[in-house]
This record gives sequence, C-alpha cells and structure tokens, in this order.
Amino acid sequence: MKTYQSMNRQELAEAKSELMKRYQKYKDMDLALNIARGNPSTQQLDMIMPMMDMINSGTDCRDMYGTDARNYGALLGLREAREYFGALLGTTVEETIVVGASSINFMYDCLARAMLKGVLGSEKPWGKYDKIKFICPVPGYDRHFGMCEFFGIDMIQVLTDEEGPDMDTIRKYVESDPTVKGMWCIPKFSNPLGITYSDRVVKELAALKPAAKDFRIFWDNSYMVHAIYEDVPLLNILDECKKAGNPDMVYMFGSTSKITMAGSGIGFFGASKANVDFTESQVKYETISWDKMNMLRHVRFLKSQGGVPNVMKKHAEILRPKFDAVFDTLSKELEGKGAGTWTKPKGGYFITFIANDGTATRINELVKACGVTMTGPGATHPYHNDPDDRYLRIAPSFPPVEELIPAMEVFAVCAQIATIEQLESRI
Amino acid sequence: MKTYQSMNRQELAEAKSELMKRYQKYKDMDLALNIARGNPSTQQLDMIMPMMDMINSGTDCRDMYGTDARNYGALLGLREAREYFGALLGTTVEETIVVGASSINFMYDCLARAMLKGVLGSEKPWGKYDKIKFICPVPGYDRHFGMCEFFGIDMIQVLTDEEGPDMDTIRKYVESDPTVKGMWCIPKFSNPLGITYSDRVVKELAALKPAAKDFRIFWDNSYMVHAIYEDVPLLNILDECKKAGNPDMVYMFGSTSKITMAGSGIGFFGASKANVDFTESQVKYETISWDKMNMLRHVRFLKSQGGVPNVMKKHAEILRPKFDAVFDTLSKELEGKGAGTWTKPKGGYFITFIANDGTATRINELVKACGVTMTGPGATHPYHNDPDDRYLRIAPSFPPVEELIPAMEVFAVCAQIATIEQLESRI
Repeated sequence: MKTYQSMNRQELAEAKSELMKRYQKYKDMDLALNIARGNPSTQQLDMIMPMMDMINSGTDCRDMYGTDARNYGALLGLREAREYFGALLGTTVEETIVVGASSINFMYDCLARAMLKGVLGSEKPWGKYDKIKFICPVPGYDRHFGMCEFFGIDMIQVLTDEEGPDMDTIRKYVESDPTVKGMWCIPKFSNPLGITYSDRVVKELAALKPAAKDFRIFWDNSYMVHAIYEDVPLLNILDECKKAGNPDMVYMFGSTSKITMAGSGIGFFGASKANVDFTESQVKYETISWDKMNMLRHVRFLKSQGGVPNVMKKHAEILRPKFDAVFDTLSKELEGKGAGTWTKPKGGYFITFIANDGTATRINELVKACGVTMTGPGATHPYHNDPDDRYLRIAPSFPPVEELIPAMEVFAVCAQIATIEQLESRI
Repeated sequence: MKTYQSMNRQELAEAKSELMKRYQKYKDMDLALNIARGNPSTQQLDMIMPMMDMINSGTDCRDMYGTDARNYGALLGLREAREYFGALLGTTVEETIVVGASSINFMYDCLARAMLKGVLGSEKPWGKYDKIKFICPVPGYDRHFGMCEFFGIDMIQVLTDEEGPDMDTIRKYVESDPTVKGMWCIPKFSNPLGITYSDRVVKELAALKPAAKDFRIFWDNSYMVHAIYEDVPLLNILDECKKAGNPDMVYMFGSTSKITMAGSGIGFFGASKANVDFTESQVKYETISWDKMNMLRHVRFLKSQGGVPNVMKKHAEILRPKFDAVFDTLSKELEGKGAGTWTKPKGGYFITFIANDGTATRINELVKACGVTMTGPGATHPYHNDPDDRYLRIAPSFPPVEELIPAMEVFAVCAQIATIEQLESRI
C-alpha cells in the first residue's frame, strides 16, 4: 500500500477518479444516514423497558427508608438512591446528591450558582470578576464549552494524550492565575477521544495547588461504567483530593442517561460533605425536590437486574458490533493510506477520526452532500474552533450496523478525496 | 358572645384560666400534628397511581407525533405535551415549553438566566445592575421571596385585597423606576390568601407601562384548576398583554404538582413566541432535554381520566371535608370573640389566619409547644418579616380530618390565649 503523500500527480489523479466514481455511486443512493448523535439505540432502550414495570398502580412508593417518593421532600434525593448512586461514584450518602433527569443540567446549575453566588470558600461570586477562566482539555465535549461561552468564561485549551490532559500546562495556569476558577474533565472513556485518565494524571490533578482558593474540577464521569471491550480502571478523584489535602476541590457528576434512558434517566452529584452541605444551602432556593419516583423506579430496576455492571454488559453486547463495524470499515478503507487516523477506545460512546490537518471541514462537506450527517468539525473545541481542522467525532451507537457500514464507507471515501484535494493543491 | 376586647381584667383572667386548662389537656395528649405543608394527602396520591400503568414494558413510547420519549431531543418538550399543557395555560404549542418536575425550579431558572444574561430586550444582565427590585404582593409565597433574597433582589411589598394586589402602588413603582424588573403573582386561589385576581386587576397589570423595557411578570398559576368549592374565572394574562401591546411582558408558569404527584409532576411555561424562542436560545446551554417519559405518562393519564377537570373534581372531594373541618372548628371556637379572622377561599391549598396584630409569633410558639407544627410567622412576607405579626398560613391538605380537628382546636385555644395575654399586658 502506498500513501497518498508518496504518490505523484498522475497517481493522485487516478486514485481520485476512482474515488469520485464511488462517491457518485453513494450519492445516487440518496442515503440518509446519521452518525452525529451519541444517542442510545432503540435496541438499548427496549432492553430497559422492564424499568417501567417497577412501579404500577398497586405498588408501594416508599423507599427502603420509608420516604413516600410521590410527595414533596428529600431535597437531596431519596436516601436509597443517594446510597445506590453514591456507590457508583464512590461517595457516601452524605457526599451524594441525586438530582433530576440530566447531569448536564446539574453541571450548568452548579456553574450558574457559582457565577451568581460563588462556591464554598469564594470571596465573591465568579460573575463579579471582570473575567474568569476554565481549563478545557481538547478535544472535548461541546456542551461543556458551550456553557463557558454562554457565561463568558475564557477557555484555556489543554491538549489531551492517552493519559489525560497535559499536567504541566494545567499546573502552570491553575497555580499562577487566581482567575482560573475551574476545569472540565471527562476522566473515563472520554468524549470524544475515549481515553481514561491515568493514575498519575488523577493524582497530579488532586495535588494541584490552585492560586484560586475556590477552584473546582468539574469531573463529568458520564462514561464511568461504559466499557465496551474492556474496563479501564480510574482512581476515585475525591479520595485522591482528600489525601492531597484538597477535599473540596472536585465536583463529580454522573448519570444514567446511557445506562437506562437518555433524557429520562437520573443525574447525580458527588463531592465532599462540606460541598454537599454548601450546595444544599443554595439549591434549597431553586427546588422543593427532584423527581423521586424516577429515582425509586431506577434503583428498583437496577437492583432487579443484579446491578449496573450486568446492565452495562448488555449495552456492550449491543454496542460492540457497531464499534467493530466502524473500526473494520476504517481499517479496510484507510489503513496505510495516509488519509487520517482514528482512536480505538475500549469503551464510551465515540470514535474520533483525526484527519490530516486542514481537511476535517472538507470531509464533513463531502459527507454531508452524500446524505451522511455527522457532528460538525470544531464541535470538539471551544468556540467551535479546531485550530488544526482535524478532529471529527463519530457516534456509532444509534444507527444499526447495516447503516453504519455504508456511512463509514462514504466517510472513508470522503477522507481520501479531501486528502488528495489537499495534496493536489500543494503540488 | 362577648369579644375579649370588651372584657375587664377579671373576665379575661377567668377566660384565660379556662383556656389554659384546655391547653394543658391538649399538651398532655402528646400530639404530633402538622398543618405546615401544602402537600397532597396520601389519598390524593393513591388516586393518581393508575398513571403508573400508562407505560409498561410492552408500551410504545412515542407521542402522537412519533417522537420516542426515551431518547434525547425535543428540548422544548414532547409536542403532544406542549399542546396539552399549553391548552391548560391558554397558550399555543409555539408559546409553550414543558420542562422538568417542578415549575418552581423553572421560575428559579428563568430568574437565574435573567440575572446572568438578561431577558429578551434587556440592555444588560439583571445581575449587572447595582440593585434591581421586584414587586412582591403580600402576603405571598415564601419560595418566591426566598429566590429574590438569594439573588439580592430588593422586594417591594404591595398589599393584596380580594381583587388582587394594589394596582396604584404597583403602577407608581413599575412605571417610574427602571430598576423594577419584575413582579411575582399567584393570580388564582393564591398562596396564602386564596384570592383570585379580578378582571380589572389583570387588565391593569397587562396595561402597565414599565419604566424598564425588560420588566417581566412572573405569573405563577400553580392553582389554576384547583377549585374546591367553586371555580373562579381568571382572565388569560397573555391575551390581555397582547391586547395592551405588551405581548412579551409575562412569563406564565404552571405544574401538575397538585394535579398528579408533588415532586414528580410536570412543570410548564407559557409566554409569547418571541419569549419562547429567546428562552430556547438560552436553555439549549443548560440541558439536552427534560424527562419526556414523564410527559408522556402524564398526558396519557390525564387524557384517560377524561381531562384535568375530572381529576380536579376528585381532588376537591378529598380536600373539601378538610377545609370544612378547619372552617367549622375556627367558627365554633373563635367566631365573634375578637381573637382573629380567617379567609374562606373557594379553592387552592391554604387558609390564612389573620391574628390580632402582634400575636402571630406568640400563637405559633404556643401551638408548637403543644405538638402542632405550622408554617412559621413571617413566611408570608419578604425576609420573613411580617411587620404586623399577624399572618399565619394553615395547610389542611395533608392531615386526615381526625387530626385536623384537634390541630385546629389547639390553634384556636392558642389564638385566644395570645389575644388575652396581649390585652392583659395593655391594661
């Protein structure tokens, strides 16, 4: 196999001509394929439907501690749910709040409260500074960056490798600048790279000596139990923060959006008891209680299934052939051609394609014109600006394998065309 | 019957001695009664349990427009739910957002976004002013006042009579002061007075000419369908605002917390399409979607019951004997004695006791020492400060009648003791 980079003008022209024929063939098929959204598939959702049988008209609606889930009260969540989801996060009941259907919503809410009122230990609300900054590992999750943009928080991009974000850069900013107030992390099977932070990275994060006394790590552990091929251990950051004398430095978030149902799952929050108490003193102004019936439904279902790991095994069985299809198609089509590389995550929801610099936007244009929708280029970066124009996120969870394969074939053809176009323009 | 005010020292002493005997008798009973919380009763919640049968493991989870309620998406709510709850509010689909389990949470959220980013037409975020102010009709709802206090919003108290808040005072402030940015209203079966705004008040509110271009009425219509004895019509404020040329001046809120289940109901928001569009442009940063499964469950249940009015009739049948018990006990014990008066609402969740000035705190002390818990004095006013110390809110919904009667007897005895104590201290 010869890389496109090693071809001469004639060879490139011939290769492109062949690729354009394939491209046209796909175009004529009037495809309407979507690899944009990290949505669970119908098959996954169907598997969760027995959760709807956990509470019916004849059911007692009290948790094991006797709280009636149907009425007001229990601001921090049903105790049984706080225990159950705390165990997932690695926090005690007192360190856990169980909230509404979306952990992203609670992240936003924590950030909004910090802007309006500050966090435990703040000298003043974050919104009262001329400017505050967040560390944003890239590539990362567009919703994290969107919140910062919405609140006018400056984003400091820090590159991520297989171990996690670059700690030297992080230390430099966090330990010198008191306006660096926070940091986003997706520490396990990260969106979009699929990497898991190494023990060294977690320990170094926990041992940071922030210039801001009210610095907070927003630890979005959305994919904590989402192994597809193999689990990868992750240290408990709260434990590490305690050991390092920084017990209040981290806010942990998790949800069942990709364990049970996306959009009608359960979100949860873990932090030091001092942070939980402080958060309670603020959230008491914003709600009477979150949906405890859904908490009860969830805990009963997950227990009935023998626990979260059993449910996740079934998800993995559904997702594995889809990830395989992407890897296989990309390998078959692109291996050794110099038209881009891709990640091979062991879990999570995404595969990241790393295109040749300056070609991601063009690949997306070509793919789109051929009826395949994917997350736009730049979504992985603050302000939708990927400076090297090379990251494209592939979400294989929703479409069936028979749609994924043609979608990835189209994608691979487009990656090659974009590569050749760029090479030709440089000759 | 002689009022305490017309008694001499000797008569007061005798009356007090009799009352103290009764008080001691109740005290010896070791009562543990609670008339503090506006919680639906177990009987009401039981009646809603068939809602849990609307979705089971074999159920199709698409709404009538084909959206799968189990997955991400539909940021503004399932279309079928927007239609259904919009009809309750008197808004079109495009004027309606269906949100999570709590309308209070969405009120907070709307206020938080206004503070952080402003509303449609704001020159700058409300939080960027040195000080902003809200009109707060009193007596009112402690959670509204708590939010203002949390955000540092100054509260302008405006007295409420049977027609609603005093419009002359409101006009004076709203039309002259551009830092008056908003106003709380509970327009129907209000908390705690139980009054409903007259057509005149609604029309005058809608016709306000606020000095602030971004003034918003927070129209918390929590009890819109909560007639117990008789319905009282309320004008649609959005319609009136449109007629008056102020289409964007009102945010309407409602929920099913006291239609289905408190804490696991559905909240909804109604406003002009321009406000809804603007709100969408902000809330897209805070969540992917709210719990659509609960929306679907609700709409199917309410339709299966032949609509909300049928459900509310059943609630009224449960609540009526409880309200009757309070009215009867208060009449029997207090009528004509000069120890306080009380409201006689036609619906809602509360009865307000208006004690003799300066005695509410003492009544609460006495009642508490006798094992009866009620909402503390001052809860009906900003900063928990009822300047005349006279409003006490009675919540009859939760306890059974056989507990309500002794609780109200204790209350009546205490109201009389406090009255006599005050008279004695003035002789």
